[in-house]
Amino acid sequence: MKEELSEFYNIFTGTKKDIESFMSILDPVINNAEDDHERLYYHHIYEEEEQRLSRLAELIPLIETFQAGKGGDFSPSNNTFNRLLQELNLEKFGLHNFVEHLDLALFQFKDAERQAKLSEMRGASHTSYQFVKEKLAGINERFETGYSDPHAHHDAHGDHLDHHAATPAQPAKPAGQKRSFTVGSLISK
Amino acid sequence: MKEELSEFYNIFTGTKKDIESFMSILDPVINNAEDDHERLYYHHIYEEEEQRLSRLAELIPLIETFQAGKGGDFSPSNNTFNRLLQELNLEKFGLHNFVEHLDLALFQFKDAERQAKLSEMRGASHTSYQFVKEKLAGINERFETGYSDPHAHHDAHGDHLDHHAATPAQPAKPAGQKRSFTVGSLISK
Repeated sequence: MKEELSEFYNIFTGTKKDIESFMSILDPVINNAEDDHERLYYHHIYEEEEQRLSRLAELIPLIETFQAGKGGDFSPSNNTFNRLLQELNLEKFGLHNFVEHLDLALFQFKDAERQAKLSEMRGASHTSYQFVKEKLAGINERFETGYSDPHAHHDAHGDHLDHHAATPAQPAKPAGQKRSFTVGSLISK
Repeated sequence: MKEELSEFYNIFTGTKKDIESFMSILDPVINNAEDDHERLYYHHIYEEEEQRLSRLAELIPLIETFQAGKGGDFSPSNNTFNRLLQELNLEKFGLHNFVEHLDLALFQFKDAERQAKLSEMRGASHTSYQFVKEKLAGINERFETGYSDPHAHHDAHGDHLDHHAATPAQPAKPAGQKRSFTVGSLISK
């Protein structure tokens, strides 16, 4: 668990910086939006990342507390440890959603400078997401937290976030059935 | 606190139904998306609401536990109560983000049927958000949870979610300074 904590610490301090970079890309776009729809769209994404930033401002010190050996046992009977796991499970989705925010931005900001910056953050975030997802699956199993992943059915259809998988677009499926999803064409353009 | 729990219960069971209605509106849109960008856009919103649904599946029983008098004291020394407050604080943002998802959908689905359904859910969600925000501010203060609202600076500039406020669009502000935001023209169209 010590080693994983160190990786989590690096991931979440890293993504914190990336959120700030992303916000600084969004800021002028919001200020110069051409209409209410465009402004709402970018402002909404900005706010979701801002919410994530404020959650990370609690999670990172909590990780540090455990790294310093002051969080108590790695045990489900320790409420502080349970809180750590809950927050990590939540920030796994935060990373997932960030990857998609970056993908959406890559569709819109086509200049070389922003493409390069967004692609770099997208790659790092995707790697971080995969790492956190894998490690948490192991931790949740190890500690029998009874946590079930609401995204598991998506992943079962293949990782729709993996932009290296050049899977062709899936045909439409009957409503109610889960769709698989590819953004295969996104980065390879 | 008993009375507030009852209101929270009604709000979160109500929004659960609305999420499901919203997903059933998004489902055919995703299946019939014209390109990867459009598909990612709606699928992303769909997934964020799906994440919220899975969190509500934990929050609602937790509220019921307290309603049944089985959650322990309403006290910061009770970890289950702290968990309740944490989850309520998180779902306040869930409601806020849902209002914006509905606003974004209102910009795009212009037929009378979907406009009516989305507007109805938008109104209810906005009322719920305001209620939860106000009650939680009081509760956080009463129990001195030390919780600070990362959105407070937005609200300080006026509630950008209030579509009845026909505030004109704000001029662009220097980067780094927080913007106020209006969607005044949204529903009044």
